[in-house]
Amino acid sequence: MAAVNLKELAKILNLSISTVSKALRDSHEIGASTKERVLAKAKELDYSPNPFASGLRRNKSKTVAVVVPEVANNYFALAINGIESVAQEKDYHVLIYLTHEDFEKEKRIMKHLENKRVDGILMSVTMHTNQCDHLFDIQQKGIPIVMFDRICHEIETAKITTDDYISGMNATKHLIDNGAKDIAFLSLGDEVSIVQKRKSGFLEELEKNNIVTAPNRIVNCNDSDESNYQKIKNLLKGKQRPDAIFASVEKLATTTYEVCKELKINIPQDLKIICFSNLATASLLSPSLSTITQPAYEIGKTAAEVMFKYLDKNKTYIPNENIVLHSTLFIRDSSQNLSK
Amino acid sequence: MAAVNLKELAKILNLSISTVSKALRDSHEIGASTKERVLAKAKELDYSPNPFASGLRRNKSKTVAVVVPEVANNYFALAINGIESVAQEKDYHVLIYLTHEDFEKEKRIMKHLENKRVDGILMSVTMHTNQCDHLFDIQQKGIPIVMFDRICHEIETAKITTDDYISGMNATKHLIDNGAKDIAFLSLGDEVSIVQKRKSGFLEELEKNNIVTAPNRIVNCNDSDESNYQKIKNLLKGKQRPDAIFASVEKLATTTYEVCKELKINIPQDLKIICFSNLATASLLSPSLSTITQPAYEIGKTAAEVMFKYLDKNKTYIPNENIVLHSTLFIRDSSQNLSK
Repeated sequence: MAAVNLKELAKILNLSISTVSKALRDSHEIGASTKERVLAKAKELDYSPNPFASGLRRNKSKTVAVVVPEVANNYFALAINGIESVAQEKDYHVLIYLTHEDFEKEKRIMKHLENKRVDGILMSVTMHTNQCDHLFDIQQKGIPIVMFDRICHEIETAKITTDDYISGMNATKHLIDNGAKDIAFLSLGDEVSIVQKRKSGFLEELEKNNIVTAPNRIVNCNDSDESNYQKIKNLLKGKQRPDAIFASVEKLATTTYEVCKELKINIPQDLKIICFSNLATASLLSPSLSTITQPAYEIGKTAAEVMFKYLDKNKTYIPNENIVLHSTLFIRDSSQNLSK
Repeated sequence: MAAVNLKELAKILNLSISTVSKALRDSHEIGASTKERVLAKAKELDYSPNPFASGLRRNKSKTVAVVVPEVANNYFALAINGIESVAQEKDYHVLIYLTHEDFEKEKRIMKHLENKRVDGILMSVTMHTNQCDHLFDIQQKGIPIVMFDRICHEIETAKITTDDYISGMNATKHLIDNGAKDIAFLSLGDEVSIVQKRKSGFLEELEKNNIVTAPNRIVNCNDSDESNYQKIKNLLKGKQRPDAIFASVEKLATTTYEVCKELKINIPQDLKIICFSNLATASLLSPSLSTITQPAYEIGKTAAEVMFKYLDKNKTYIPNENIVLHSTLFIRDSSQNLSK
């Protein structure tokens, strides 16, 4: 007898698929007695938690979805181009969905995609995505997901990221080597995995150099430009301002440039700046902006290649795999001790 | 008896829909005898060329498609955000398709959208789109199109553009007022309606000022960064170089900055620059970049509002309407005679 799938198991138990799925994941939303009943029946019927491992998809839509927070963002725009370069070769259409950092919208989009209108989904979650049930549900429907950059660790699949922790350390070391003694970190969203890693690298490097950071040197920014402008201005307007800024994302660095213009703070003499960025005009800024640049196009391309490796074989189950690409440190004028 | 629609007419004539549609439009692809036969039958059966004018759509997908050349482009990224702001209110999903300036890909995307997977399409065509049959076909299937920025004049629908001709004149006048006597125009694609208008405004203003342009002052660029870099370098490297550049799109201005860096040409002392641009960091460049800035977000928003005005009433026929929004001239350092 073939092993049952989730849908069959739910039917036999007379429970919803979602309840069974949650019970199998030991969710707090499901009572203990239901969990026991589900687990016993799953064992009895030899239920495999990965029913799609050997499952063949029949109806192909020849379409993949890309779900990202934003396109007015150099990183995501380049990653999308990388994805498209592979899809084009495979004669696939690419649909792009934007979440605009809205977790509820991300959930609605996933719901919308449930009906197999696409063969696979490549995604980067919002800054507010703090649980991944909606992604798990999509996988259970037999639609594979590949995650890139902003990932959910809990989801079993291929995840493409960059060496954010090491890059965070290297950028911090570079600032210290150029004389920075009091560095502020501009953070973005507590839930964003990559920002956490960048911050950990930053803090680790400070510790290695016996530099103690005041709590107000970690500035938690968000997706409002005006609010970020104020926060950065508050940080820089007093006499106790830091001598360097490490911005976790590009937008916060360009906002810092604008604040410095208003406050007449000279970069890099009065304030050194470095940031994660894919800004094409970084070298044309005044002064030129030092960046840690992610291989955004390559990340998108790799994510798509992994997706098609499975789609080509009609497989909808993608096993866990962490693919880490390397970022490059571009040292320009904004972060250097020019008087050295 | 109700009037027949295109599909019924084609069936009665035992011809394909596309043949009938082309015959009705007097296409050169269709022979004279077929055209006569089609026109006679159309008259006999009271065929209406706009069968969707009064037609009500039943199955709504609650989804609109946005078809644009590129997202690694500040203008389109902002326009998409404008569209999304309206769609969000209407509880609609937005699918984004990228043509990457590939006319064949644009046609494939239109074919893909024919099966009513979306309720409407908002689009800006590729730089190589030189005929609009694929758009006409989509309209005939009862899927409304609203065009913005790069439009097809032949298609009957709402078209949202900016005052490109006047802006082209104003930017040119500004350069002349600041002492420019030999201005080069960096063009992009012969088919792009808006670039043609910008160039016409440029030439008109030169004529008004009795300035004669050499043919080599109109540089036809394309979508290859490397090729554009070489073309601009060739323009600027000799002694006979122009004293100002008017770039029809942002990318060509930032490439000019890079060429000037390599050739050690000082902006604006040796060369003045102005361009159409939505670059968020224009004021942070060295020197700050003068721009004609289109209200990209507003354009997207307006296009979506027009679309929903008809979708809300279940109408799929959108009559011709030209909506023109105004661009703003931002004079910064790159175009000014600073010694004045």
